[in-house]
Amino acid sequence: MYKISYIDDFEQWKREFKFFIEVKIRFSETDMFGHVNNVSPFIYFEEARIEFLRQIGVFTKIKDSESVPVVADLQCNFLEQMFFGEKLLLFVKANKVGSSSIDLHYMGVKENGNVCFTGRGNLVNINPTTGKSIPLTEDEKKKLRKN
Amino acid sequence: MYKISYIDDFEQWKREFKFFIEVKIRFSETDMFGHVNNVSPFIYFEEARIEFLRQIGVFTKIKDSESVPVVADLQCNFLEQMFFGEKLLLFVKANKVGSSSIDLHYMGVKENGNVCFTGRGNLVNINPTTGKSIPLTEDEKKKLRKN
Amino acid sequence: MYKISYIDDFEQWKREFKFFIEVKIRFSETDMFGHVNNVSPFIYFEEARIEFLRQIGVFTKIKDSESVPVVADLQCNFLEQMFFGEKLLLFVKANKVGSSSIDLHYMGVKENGNVCFTGRGNLVNINPTTGKSIPLTEDEKKKLRKN
Amino acid sequence: MYKISYIDDFEQWKREFKFFIEVKIRFSETDMFGHVNNVSPFIYFEEARIEFLRQIGVFTKIKDSESVPVVADLQCNFLEQMFFGEKLLLFVKANKVGSSSIDLHYMGVKENGNVCFTGRGNLVNINPTTGKSIPLTEDEKKKLRKN
Repeated sequence: MYKISYIDDFEQWKREFKFFIEVKIRFSETDMFGHVNNVSPFIYFEEARIEFLRQIGVFTKIKDSESVPVVADLQCNFLEQMFFGEKLLLFVKANKVGSSSIDLHYMGVKENGNVCFTGRGNLVNINPTTGKSIPLTEDEKKKLRKN
Repeated sequence: MYKISYIDDFEQWKREFKFFIEVKIRFSETDMFGHVNNVSPFIYFEEARIEFLRQIGVFTKIKDSESVPVVADLQCNFLEQMFFGEKLLLFVKANKVGSSSIDLHYMGVKENGNVCFTGRGNLVNINPTTGKSIPLTEDEKKKLRKN
Repeated sequence: MYKISYIDDFEQWKREFKFFIEVKIRFSETDMFGHVNNVSPFIYFEEARIEFLRQIGVFTKIKDSESVPVVADLQCNFLEQMFFGEKLLLFVKANKVGSSSIDLHYMGVKENGNVCFTGRGNLVNINPTTGKSIPLTEDEKKKLRKN
Repeated sequence: MYKISYIDDFEQWKREFKFFIEVKIRFSETDMFGHVNNVSPFIYFEEARIEFLRQIGVFTKIKDSESVPVVADLQCNFLEQMFFGEKLLLFVKANKVGSSSIDLHYMGVKENGNVCFTGRGNLVNINPTTGKSIPLTEDEKKKLRKN
């Protein structure tokens, strides 16, 4: 396998994931070559990210909050093709917790155990009115570092 | 062609359309059989509906308004397959204007002039707080009847 | 509730459903008013339809088959708004089995038991080369009538 | 602005783009916070990539070809929020042409001239039967280097 810029030791990187959601590939997510569109993993990242933050209890009061999480960047490496009807486990972890941002990493695993894609992206804590970044609380950092 | 329940005279029905938008089929809207997913026309209806209402000046202040348009039902008849890269003209008209609702009709036309799908759906004028229907103003009815 | 054209007795219509799938609403399916886009039920219909046909064993060899199922029309009535994170049960049944087509009916039910949308659509058995309709076999009709 | 890993000199990087397509943001691409979902730029990348390759005449006979372009990775940096109804110019260029792959770069520009997102991704030339990479022809490389 070729080197992925944000992964040092692939086996160790894999072992560090604990949280995952199940994803069922929708028919509307397949393209005219019969396999899953390369846009879909980013949809799955979003599902996993929201569920992950909800379960560990960070960024849960988005609507009326003075700080909201904003996606600053996203990337995905496609390792193996996926097909309609396949089920995926989508893992997510907080790879690095900064003062006001989190580097979230993602891994899609097929039922046969093969990793079909990897990904990452920064989530920045923002004041929605001023647009400025806001430090994460110690409590939030603690919850994120454990997962 | 088989009979479509909401169309009496197909040729006359076609002639009554004036407003249209151009739609370019996205690659992500094709499925694994190489043709456009049957979900996509409903996406195109939405584009056309919003643009139609904006241009004739009805329901333009949705965000802070005391009445909002709500889609009550939608239907589509698929007459001819569409493929990636094709361009469509999507026509829309107010087929019937009720006291607090509009029966919007849609027609998708390929570059060769063939009608590839037809559709319709009721849009009801609602008070977002109470959920009750609200009469359209005479001005709104007039604008809708002209288009 | 207003009258839906394809439903005679709502309570009886509900009771006739047996098959369902679970649908989890994706964040990307919500719109800027915070509720589920009116395009999404048609995506859910497709998931349910494919799973239904697979489980009862009709139209299972689509790729190399001499007959394929083609969606002729679709409609949906929106009864109650859905929101991100909600789980739905999506029911499907063969309401009427014709000589070469099936009238499939759909019902979306929230966790509180409320029906949030209903729908229907014809599926026609087509020869992909000639485009002509092909009679369903007696075996297919029997399987469909039971579900 | 923060440093983007795949851009050295932002002003020079911008000047090197020549090809672009126009993108109209769809209502179904907005989320419940009123702005464009962060999945959508990847849909736009795909539109731009297909149109770019078609216009310069590379990878045009995908269906029956012995070599197909496969997306190996994708990334996007989100610089400014986009809203429903806005029009974008989406630029694409071949930033680097390898022996059997292309590093495509993308830039989304709003009507006010602001860059709202940047992106990149490798496209690898693959034999669809063996899955092995195939060298680009000199003619293909020449066409890509000019654009």
